[in-house]
Amino acid sequence: MPSNMSVEQMVEEKARQAKAVSQIVANLPTDVKNKALLNIAQALIDRREYILSSNSEDIEAARKKKLSEALIDRLLLNEARIEAMSESMRQVAALPDPVGEIIEGWKRPNGLVIQKVRVPLGVIGIIYEARPNVTVDSAGLCLKAGNCVVLKGGSEALQSNIALTHVIKQAIADAGVPPEAVQLLDTPERAAAQHLMRLNQYIDVLIPRGGAGLIRYVMENATVPVIETGVGNCHVYVDASADLDMAEEIVFNAKCQRPSVCNAAETLLVHKDVAEAFLPRIAKRLLDAGVEIRGCPETLRIVPPCEKVVPAKDEDWDTEYLDLIIAVKVVNSLDEAIEHINRHGTKHSEAIVTRDLKSAQRFCAEVDAAAVYVNTSTRFTDGFEFGLGAEIGISTQKLHARGPMGLKELTTYKYVVYGDGQVRK
Amino acid sequence: MPSNMSVEQMVEEKARQAKAVSQIVANLPTDVKNKALLNIAQALIDRREYILSSNSEDIEAARKKKLSEALIDRLLLNEARIEAMSESMRQVAALPDPVGEIIEGWKRPNGLVIQKVRVPLGVIGIIYEARPNVTVDSAGLCLKAGNCVVLKGGSEALQSNIALTHVIKQAIADAGVPPEAVQLLDTPERAAAQHLMRLNQYIDVLIPRGGAGLIRYVMENATVPVIETGVGNCHVYVDASADLDMAEEIVFNAKCQRPSVCNAAETLLVHKDVAEAFLPRIAKRLLDAGVEIRGCPETLRIVPPCEKVVPAKDEDWDTEYLDLIIAVKVVNSLDEAIEHINRHGTKHSEAIVTRDLKSAQRFCAEVDAAAVYVNTSTRFTDGFEFGLGAEIGISTQKLHARGPMGLKELTTYKYVVYGDGQVRK
Repeated sequence: MPSNMSVEQMVEEKARQAKAVSQIVANLPTDVKNKALLNIAQALIDRREYILSSNSEDIEAARKKKLSEALIDRLLLNEARIEAMSESMRQVAALPDPVGEIIEGWKRPNGLVIQKVRVPLGVIGIIYEARPNVTVDSAGLCLKAGNCVVLKGGSEALQSNIALTHVIKQAIADAGVPPEAVQLLDTPERAAAQHLMRLNQYIDVLIPRGGAGLIRYVMENATVPVIETGVGNCHVYVDASADLDMAEEIVFNAKCQRPSVCNAAETLLVHKDVAEAFLPRIAKRLLDAGVEIRGCPETLRIVPPCEKVVPAKDEDWDTEYLDLIIAVKVVNSLDEAIEHINRHGTKHSEAIVTRDLKSAQRFCAEVDAAAVYVNTSTRFTDGFEFGLGAEIGISTQKLHARGPMGLKELTTYKYVVYGDGQVRK
Repeated sequence: MPSNMSVEQMVEEKARQAKAVSQIVANLPTDVKNKALLNIAQALIDRREYILSSNSEDIEAARKKKLSEALIDRLLLNEARIEAMSESMRQVAALPDPVGEIIEGWKRPNGLVIQKVRVPLGVIGIIYEARPNVTVDSAGLCLKAGNCVVLKGGSEALQSNIALTHVIKQAIADAGVPPEAVQLLDTPERAAAQHLMRLNQYIDVLIPRGGAGLIRYVMENATVPVIETGVGNCHVYVDASADLDMAEEIVFNAKCQRPSVCNAAETLLVHKDVAEAFLPRIAKRLLDAGVEIRGCPETLRIVPPCEKVVPAKDEDWDTEYLDLIIAVKVVNSLDEAIEHINRHGTKHSEAIVTRDLKSAQRFCAEVDAAAVYVNTSTRFTDGFEFGLGAEIGISTQKLHARGPMGLKELTTYKYVVYGDGQVRK
């Protein structure tokens, strides 16, 4: 950024540039967008030494700052990760273009023909943490859906992001896409994100991608409309009529298959009628996998307390552990389970294991979540698992999109109305 | 409200009560909701003396405060207006219930059956001005779509709103709907609205209904997701190939049929090739109707300046007059018209008058607005005119809903997934 520009001026200028080309990008033919995506895929491979050397600057700085190994691992790029980013661009190129679909249409008695047409959102702001793959992924998905994007990544990944967006801009320009369609706020300053969040004249939608703290920060400070993503305090409820073998597999999968992600289960609810039969076996299975159990008094009556089986505190029912820890509660009824979930859940993913049709139907109708599951794992809340072919995040709010968001969720619609001189009476 | 409660406590308590019954309301059978709406319709008539006497307290206070006659007229209820509110509830009862629609569904290769089901938004906060009819209208529409509602109307209408919600709560309770589904923040204090806007744990969506100032205030202060409504700086563009008779009717209708509303036109753009032929005739038509013209230099070369024909200033291109005033500009090309609209428009409603297919197609594709019109008036952006059967507002943002919002736009969806023991690999 030019040294005589303030951070605010830089942000505004880049957002303005994106907005200025947004109608061109919105109307690009599908084959031009696909060519741009394939160019990005190829350029990531061709320019990998430049990318890796920029990334190593970030890694070196991170080590100097003594960042955690987990953070450094998320920041790190290598040949395999570059290949994965490249492959994901090829996959996005292969997906159908959502833009231009006539969602519905009708003719009014006065002869007006009304069409509801799928169009891009416009300019999307993405605020994220120090994961360089999000830079590539966000740019590719936004572009395929006809959007421009303004990226603000974590400061620890700055050099990597500068290199990646440099490569992306050149690759899309070679395909005939205005390079202004992809903008990086190339500053470590947090003020850049703050300013971006309030640029309603240029930014149509903000999508924060990252942990609970980042998302809350954006929700609280943005005036631009935000899609809230990610936080998942997910439950599995084992009903009185559950097949306990199935319940064991589902609970184990939901907790242990990948505990660090938002669709992993954090709390197990068990109907009192099967608690004596189910809790000892699931406890053994979980303890063998290194899971810590935080139980209600009734749970601790059935499963003897030990170093890894401890009493749950009030805050446990509201905690997204993202770790090998599970809260366990015995409930008296389906009603109590639903009520517990609606009180403590984050409207993400909730599962029931049952053989009873009415229980399944009531759970699905009365639990307020983006995805409700009968006899399967919460881990399926994912754009790829749902068959959407892509995912920019999982919405936990109710406006616009809920659950996994793919390309379609990066679009909106406009009404196109043709008349022949009609005026309103 | 109990005198020992702070405004914040009162707001929180009412929002909490609405949330507590929201899953019951979400799952009410259609006939119960319709019975509740018909009960409201009847109760408004039966209790009209109580409502009118409460309204007269508001009117008296408004006169003492020397509020404008326009404001007092919006505040005023009479027998005819009560009948109109009652009739609108009967119409909402007659509309199809949007809740429960299976929007789409598919089976995954692993056997999971995924259904995308239309469900209510939950609890909707409505912040509005001193129009008592908005109280009834919002409660009825939200209820039909299975939502609870927390209402904060303008302080000038407080007594009217207390009476109306009292009548509504009793009427819906008689039909078996929890009266907690409709909540009024019965205080004149602005702090109540401010607190409501940040109650993310209880309020799913905020819809401000009113003027530009109110909407901007909500956008800037809310952490709850907001649907931006209303502000319309709408344009009619008369292309070089336009049928000038048709253009005259459309421009006249868009400006004059009801100048005080958001879908009225505020700026006329005329292609230079037809400016000499079109501007004198449309100017005469508009001037005869009492419209003031604020023209660009080229317009003023063709239409001689006078008391009602004056030079446009820069800010005129960005002004929503909501009055008998129109800004007029001669443009050199379709490109210049599109660029002007995308720069100065508010993404509401934009019209082209043309005989040229390519111009029509480019205008529809490249103008960024909720509704784009070919050869018809911007005044048609309206839920009833579109055939939606109802309207809670006109969205000018891109998330969730664009243009007229009917019952469907007061819903969201959830994914309901049935499995048979599937776990994620």
